[in-house]
Amino acid sequence: MRYPLIVLILALTALAGGFAFVEWSKGGSGAGLYSRHWSPEAVQGYWDPATFYQSPDSVQGVFKGEECVQCHEAVTPGIVADWRNSRHAKAGERVWCSGCHGDDHQRLHLPTPAVCGGCHGKQHGEFKAEADFGFPSHVLAMDRALSAPHFVDKPKAEVQSCVQCHSVATKCDSCHTRHRFDAAEARRPEACITCHSGPPHPDDETYFASAHGRLYRAEGDQWDWSKPLVKGNYKVPTCAYCHMEGGRHQVANKSLWKFGLLEVNPHTAANKALRRDWVGLCGDCHEAEKARQWLSDLDRERKQAWKMLNEAEAILKGLRTEDLLFPAPEERPAYPLEQRPRAHIGFYEGQASAFYNVSAVERDYFEMWYFDSLGAYKAAAHGDWARISKGHKGMAASLEKIRQQAGSLRDLKIVEQKAGIEASTEGLWQRGAYTDYNRDQN
Amino acid sequence: MRYPLIVLILALTALAGGFAFVEWSKGGSGAGLYSRHWSPEAVQGYWDPATFYQSPDSVQGVFKGEECVQCHEAVTPGIVADWRNSRHAKAGERVWCSGCHGDDHQRLHLPTPAVCGGCHGKQHGEFKAEADFGFPSHVLAMDRALSAPHFVDKPKAEVQSCVQCHSVATKCDSCHTRHRFDAAEARRPEACITCHSGPPHPDDETYFASAHGRLYRAEGDQWDWSKPLVKGNYKVPTCAYCHMEGGRHQVANKSLWKFGLLEVNPHTAANKALRRDWVGLCGDCHEAEKARQWLSDLDRERKQAWKMLNEAEAILKGLRTEDLLFPAPEERPAYPLEQRPRAHIGFYEGQASAFYNVSAVERDYFEMWYFDSLGAYKAAAHGDWARISKGHKGMAASLEKIRQQAGSLRDLKIVEQKAGIEASTEGLWQRGAYTDYNRDQN
Amino acid sequence: MRYPLIVLILALTALAGGFAFVEWSKGGSGAGLYSRHWSPEAVQGYWDPATFYQSPDSVQGVFKGEECVQCHEAVTPGIVADWRNSRHAKAGERVWCSGCHGDDHQRLHLPTPAVCGGCHGKQHGEFKAEADFGFPSHVLAMDRALSAPHFVDKPKAEVQSCVQCHSVATKCDSCHTRHRFDAAEARRPEACITCHSGPPHPDDETYFASAHGRLYRAEGDQWDWSKPLVKGNYKVPTCAYCHMEGGRHQVANKSLWKFGLLEVNPHTAANKALRRDWVGLCGDCHEAEKARQWLSDLDRERKQAWKMLNEAEAILKGLRTEDLLFPAPEERPAYPLEQRPRAHIGFYEGQASAFYNVSAVERDYFEMWYFDSLGAYKAAAHGDWARISKGHKGMAASLEKIRQQAGSLRDLKIVEQKAGIEASTEGLWQRGAYTDYNRDQN
Repeated sequence: MRYPLIVLILALTALAGGFAFVEWSKGGSGAGLYSRHWSPEAVQGYWDPATFYQSPDSVQGVFKGEECVQCHEAVTPGIVADWRNSRHAKAGERVWCSGCHGDDHQRLHLPTPAVCGGCHGKQHGEFKAEADFGFPSHVLAMDRALSAPHFVDKPKAEVQSCVQCHSVATKCDSCHTRHRFDAAEARRPEACITCHSGPPHPDDETYFASAHGRLYRAEGDQWDWSKPLVKGNYKVPTCAYCHMEGGRHQVANKSLWKFGLLEVNPHTAANKALRRDWVGLCGDCHEAEKARQWLSDLDRERKQAWKMLNEAEAILKGLRTEDLLFPAPEERPAYPLEQRPRAHIGFYEGQASAFYNVSAVERDYFEMWYFDSLGAYKAAAHGDWARISKGHKGMAASLEKIRQQAGSLRDLKIVEQKAGIEASTEGLWQRGAYTDYNRDQN
Repeated sequence: MRYPLIVLILALTALAGGFAFVEWSKGGSGAGLYSRHWSPEAVQGYWDPATFYQSPDSVQGVFKGEECVQCHEAVTPGIVADWRNSRHAKAGERVWCSGCHGDDHQRLHLPTPAVCGGCHGKQHGEFKAEADFGFPSHVLAMDRALSAPHFVDKPKAEVQSCVQCHSVATKCDSCHTRHRFDAAEARRPEACITCHSGPPHPDDETYFASAHGRLYRAEGDQWDWSKPLVKGNYKVPTCAYCHMEGGRHQVANKSLWKFGLLEVNPHTAANKALRRDWVGLCGDCHEAEKARQWLSDLDRERKQAWKMLNEAEAILKGLRTEDLLFPAPEERPAYPLEQRPRAHIGFYEGQASAFYNVSAVERDYFEMWYFDSLGAYKAAAHGDWARISKGHKGMAASLEKIRQQAGSLRDLKIVEQKAGIEASTEGLWQRGAYTDYNRDQN
Repeated sequence: MRYPLIVLILALTALAGGFAFVEWSKGGSGAGLYSRHWSPEAVQGYWDPATFYQSPDSVQGVFKGEECVQCHEAVTPGIVADWRNSRHAKAGERVWCSGCHGDDHQRLHLPTPAVCGGCHGKQHGEFKAEADFGFPSHVLAMDRALSAPHFVDKPKAEVQSCVQCHSVATKCDSCHTRHRFDAAEARRPEACITCHSGPPHPDDETYFASAHGRLYRAEGDQWDWSKPLVKGNYKVPTCAYCHMEGGRHQVANKSLWKFGLLEVNPHTAANKALRRDWVGLCGDCHEAEKARQWLSDLDRERKQAWKMLNEAEAILKGLRTEDLLFPAPEERPAYPLEQRPRAHIGFYEGQASAFYNVSAVERDYFEMWYFDSLGAYKAAAHGDWARISKGHKGMAASLEKIRQQAGSLRDLKIVEQKAGIEASTEGLWQRGAYTDYNRDQN
């Protein structure tokens, strides 16, 4: 009896999924899985030009590069000046506007990574190769955002704040600002920290609080940023020096601890090889022995962090088994295309679900994991000792709070059963009011 | 019967108001409406020199400029060096110390905007013209602070922190530091962010988190800041580039959304004209169509924000009508010169009153409005997408909390009426203890 | 009967203390009083090299300076380049690697302040002289950390975050980064703010929010930092300009308010002399009269702060006398080497004890004192008016909360006595769970 039901459900799911793929439309809701439920702000045309950019139709005609420059010298002199200072303008064979934008003014396009890759094949190839390493990743960043069902439930302004940075996958000027497209710019930390700052990834804050970052702040303006990122050229390393060694446009292969998101076994052969690479890199300035100790310090920090996180997760799984999470999974609003809501716990079971429509104790766990643990990891990796302290103190407090809540929930259950009372489900995240509000507004 | 009572009240008010205007005294409490109740710290002599500066009497004599410089070269060489580097010293006809400070060392004065305006008439005229546009305003900033009755109830140190920035109305070196008085300095964001930072006006934070700000941070030190703020001279705009277009010393006329303080109808003819100006300005570097979309994004952000704010305000007005605010207006300490306390709600009904001596639910609304909404506005205006998210998440949570509190207050009233209980008024802000403490200390 | 007991206790204490001094061991737990209970991470070898540094044994041989340089030019070119740019390399008689590190590659050492003091005797002498002024102090910073019993109860990552900065006592490159060892670097605020930032000592934040700091941010990169810190050389002062006048390596003697930690009588002859020194220093740029007023403003700020702190402390002492603190002292975990736990209140009675294992009302007082008061002090001293406001608002709220809690505790006691109920001791800090957890992990 049960088997045909499952078949029916699967068939209906497929059908619903099929309808969800709406017609592709420039400037509309796009072609993603959830495009029926959500469409982005107009600025998405800048962030994901291949899908959303619409050319202005105010000027018509087909123009040669010299003509573009002549007119834009008056209209937008700043970008022309940037271009004149770029290698595009100084190269033996100039790269004119039309090379990247096309020459028909009513059918202009903004260049995608593939357009840039036409000349910069090595960099584009490295960039695409990041996909081999799974999440987190630059090249997969936009896909990751667009296929996340919980984005449909968040206010549009909040999703836009995610997508702005995830646009690093769909255009190159996140790091090489138009129309100078400078390698020197991208070697400096400012190119990275527009996105890599704030919780849950305080790379900005932790780097600038480190001894490296302090020296960069005080003296970096005097350094020659046209030099490649190799041994001896810079007094202290920047983001790119360590993470994009020698200028390689692929960051994922060096990740020891996967952004702090995953518990990693530091004793595998692959991980040991990675460690040797890092020790070699630190060795550009420091004793190998010291570098090894720093990596051990980092491992110990992670070990202590995961011990606390795993203990918290075990408590929550126990509560789920005992049916003590309020609201229970079946009381939560389901995501679009989902048949029924589920009580995910932790990252691999579904990070997204932990944001909204969960019980207070799950939310505490989520914040412990997302803010305190990730913050401490970034601090340990970059040498910001004060923020390690902040993160671990936060995790310890959360773990204790989760323990106490678990005890209270068990006690309450006993009392309620004796008294024959039904627990009520209240609060912003739990009842789905926030979700309803946003679905209504977006 | 009622009419004579009103006349009596008005007469008493006028009398009280009259007494409140105390004698003008340099270095004392000033001449403001509340000067009987409050006098500033000595540093006010720097911030509002026309009213409070007292000349030192340690040196006597009348001096010529060359004599001032000769002596101060030894006594305070830094400010002499700054002056030597200024246009005042390099101009054909030098502007000597006495030109601004007078020449009698026992009757020196610090220059007010009017003194500077003696030569810089165009700038001073533009600056004064801001008054035509109402609050918020630079030129009215000191008046605004001094005539706010709630300042009397705050700790002196807190009021000083307001007044330091509001001194932009009463001296010119808030932006053009003495004794260099450089236009180049004022073109850079640092000239603005001494004041324009932190809640409730995170202009600093939102600009530096934007793509514009990041480029300024990385490369701004290499730019030539002696150039005027016009198209083509700067790679990215700074505060002054957009808000003081071409160097105009009047900021108020370009305000689309009035600092985020007011709900504005974007469809009026005047507002549409403003939008055309902004699109023109963005057009120095960007496509007009993109600029229009950004302004629409901003409007949508505000529309969503005001929808939430108005909903919260409506809930509070309902509670006031039903007499459910604790403490009730008549239980709150009145301001000096006020006959009786009033339960203001929202900005136009009286922003000040929402700070202190209000019920918890009013305080939640105030913080939603003052911190979350204004923060989101600044973020949307400057392109800091992450802070838009933070603000809207905060507003959503506050609105839900206000809704729940309103429900609880109504339930409580029913229970109390049945039981014949009087509600008690407790807590720091509610009972006026904070107000009493401060009035005692100030 | 009581006297022999005290003798016995003292004898046992001495015995326990004696055992606690374990054998000295490089890279182990060190030689401190609590070394049996706690050992540092490996990075301590960098921070306190005299005690913890272990030379790498991968390379053997005894080398001359030219040989070191020849090899390290290839191995670590960055540090060789820094050295070549340093006075060590440019001096008539070069200071080679071996001068500071020794020449036996298996017995290398990292230089301690005493090693640097071999040549820089004046600076080292000034540095050591700080000890005459008591805490807070740079030269005593490491001792202070290592002899604090509460460090044993904190997570290792948190203690490391303290010790990193306290290593200023045990090496010179906290301010003069190896291998350039530049005086110019140490004249800039970045040299100080690696440590002097964040609560409870927001020197970084308050300086950069001041008029001085803003000008440094905008223009400091253009100044000539090779100039000594004397009158007329710099447009605005930096940390070192005021606190290390003329380059003196001793900061403690100018302290007016002892970091904000102590209540100071500003009317003693010694304090008045200090004030004259400060007025003289401010006089490099400002009128003496203004400088005197600023110091008075600071005194008034402190007076108001201490009034609130003392009121809070008096309430807590009352609660202690009435045995109303939960957990009571005897229920708290004792520190190692301590015979019994004690309920310290306030700074002089034992700052450390206020962190953990205290009642909620004591914790509130601690945060009022440690974060709000110290933050307001730094703000007042550096001219960051907004942060003065933040601190005083926080203190007022805490004081009110402490008052209310004291009332509730007294009421509760009466109710409990009538009902014959024992109070239960719950919560993270109170029951010692955090302490137990950390002792287990460290």
